[in-house]
Amino acid sequence: MKNWEKNVREVVPYVPGEQPKEKDIIKLNTNENPYPPAPGVGRALEKFKTDQLRLYPDPSAEELVEALAKQYRVKTSEVFVGVGSDDVLAMAFLTFFNSGKPILFPDITYSFYDVWAEVFRIPYKTIPLDESFCIRPMDYQVDNGGIIFPNPNAPTGVLLPLEQVEEIIRENSDVVVIVDEAYIDFGGESALPLIQKYENLLVVQTFSKSRSMAGMRIGYAFGNEKIIKYLNDVKYSFNSYTMNQLTIALGKASVKDEAYFRETLDKIVETREWTKKELRKLGFEFEDSMSNFIFATHPKISAKKLFEDLKKEGIYVRHFSRPERICDYLRITIGTWEEMRILIAFLEDYVN
Amino acid sequence: MKNWEKNVREVVPYVPGEQPKEKDIIKLNTNENPYPPAPGVGRALEKFKTDQLRLYPDPSAEELVEALAKQYRVKTSEVFVGVGSDDVLAMAFLTFFNSGKPILFPDITYSFYDVWAEVFRIPYKTIPLDESFCIRPMDYQVDNGGIIFPNPNAPTGVLLPLEQVEEIIRENSDVVVIVDEAYIDFGGESALPLIQKYENLLVVQTFSKSRSMAGMRIGYAFGNEKIIKYLNDVKYSFNSYTMNQLTIALGKASVKDEAYFRETLDKIVETREWTKKELRKLGFEFEDSMSNFIFATHPKISAKKLFEDLKKEGIYVRHFSRPERICDYLRITIGTWEEMRILIAFLEDYVN
Repeated sequence: MKNWEKNVREVVPYVPGEQPKEKDIIKLNTNENPYPPAPGVGRALEKFKTDQLRLYPDPSAEELVEALAKQYRVKTSEVFVGVGSDDVLAMAFLTFFNSGKPILFPDITYSFYDVWAEVFRIPYKTIPLDESFCIRPMDYQVDNGGIIFPNPNAPTGVLLPLEQVEEIIRENSDVVVIVDEAYIDFGGESALPLIQKYENLLVVQTFSKSRSMAGMRIGYAFGNEKIIKYLNDVKYSFNSYTMNQLTIALGKASVKDEAYFRETLDKIVETREWTKKELRKLGFEFEDSMSNFIFATHPKISAKKLFEDLKKEGIYVRHFSRPERICDYLRITIGTWEEMRILIAFLEDYVN
Repeated sequence: MKNWEKNVREVVPYVPGEQPKEKDIIKLNTNENPYPPAPGVGRALEKFKTDQLRLYPDPSAEELVEALAKQYRVKTSEVFVGVGSDDVLAMAFLTFFNSGKPILFPDITYSFYDVWAEVFRIPYKTIPLDESFCIRPMDYQVDNGGIIFPNPNAPTGVLLPLEQVEEIIRENSDVVVIVDEAYIDFGGESALPLIQKYENLLVVQTFSKSRSMAGMRIGYAFGNEKIIKYLNDVKYSFNSYTMNQLTIALGKASVKDEAYFRETLDKIVETREWTKKELRKLGFEFEDSMSNFIFATHPKISAKKLFEDLKKEGIYVRHFSRPERICDYLRITIGTWEEMRILIAFLEDYVN
């Protein structure tokens, strides 16, 4: 090792879900939406003049922030936007978790939390979920430097009722509590109204799942004016222009079409409920999911083997080899009805 | 101040150049390119299908990386891409400047370097430029934790000859040296070939100036395989999907049109040389600029006053009130020939 290499930051790089390049597959491995973005997004693209790309984008992404503020009935000063919720969350870690005390998050959760804690050298402690994969609010009543958890949780899909989310926020008023609501639109109740009551709360959402725009990279957060200002101060000292012109224009177009948004959500929820019923018939076991995926295990089938056999059939789902507690589970994204029928037909043969 | 606020990261937010919303202005304040992006960029936009936005982008931005590797005749493993060169540089600070020793950069330079050092808590020391705003390589032969400088330097526009760039890299082989070449295409000689000789070198460039794509946010870096891998490891542990689908598609289209690229560069250089001549006639003083801007002062005119008077005329240039050494200078971006004629005509009246 050369001398210059001795000062390189050591990281354990996150391994994202496979993005296979084949076209004819059923892709149920990265929780993408099976439906296209709102029709207005295509129209916004058609109207866009590439000549204007010579200019810097609006650093405050005002049009997108205004569209979100209007849709969610908050002030523009209560909205933060970023390059996917990963960017929003990373900025929040950097901004709020500087006490030196360990931050808390569940032992089974979004696999980026410990990665950010490591890269930013933030101490952390994981809190085990109970046997039904539930977060117990009282477990979070210990001295800490901040709290983050997804709701519904990933990759379990389990929703924490809003009263219990509030309990965690209320009992930890000396630190920032981040509720990562990447999957909230698929049946959960958002903590958004609580930002008016608790200034230590940051609610993070994304365009990647419910708005069918994973390819565009848009995340956002709600909080009181003060917490949003702190976040913006750090963001602007990092990179002032992260939201490109097309992101702003297409994101805005998406937010404006509430009817299409509700319609696709309803379809996904309906397909999810049908899939749950069919999986149960086949002996699969899972906690009730309020997200766009089901986290299932089968008493008689190895998850790893099934994962590989599905892949051979061109059906991609997600398997996590760690932590051990979940290595016999598969996370199956809800696709179109047709895709789920093909999956279920394959599993019917496979199980019997 | 509430308890949760005590652990908020303290930053001095960077103030980006004004992005006025009026349409009828002459915008010479943020070093944008006056010409539109290559025609292929518009065609790539037209061909883009928004339906595919439901899927995550390719985290490795392979198509864009391949286009850059081909154009610059390096291996794909020697290329890193990010959300503007600000993103690339911030990741490089985080990855390479961890020795605890102060990093070095010029006292007059891109105003983001000290901002990143502060936000990442990296100690730094600024090295004064000489009286002609030149970087003296021997000043960088002191114990340090890394080096960064723009070439040509900003906001001075002064180019350091390649032998002197090499001297800095060679004499600092124990640390990473970052050469920030945002403006290199306007007449400088890139340090790119040196990546084959020095593995402690990172060369950073951008689509924002010479490629007319500030609005799209694309930056990139060249280095040996090892240094690029370290950078990617940190990048993936931060945010795996920063380059959205449109960024990748439109960036690729831009790189492919070398003829258009050369043509716009030639026009800007020609306009710059004409503007220099005219400014000199009017008594302005400046070091020779090899960038797409001129950093000028006038012995009889207050820069601040001129800045404001130009603004009243709808002509925006950039004025830096700090450091004091440059507070009597204006940084004037090279616009179209027509825009520069209007500026010069105004100045002719103003000076006389």
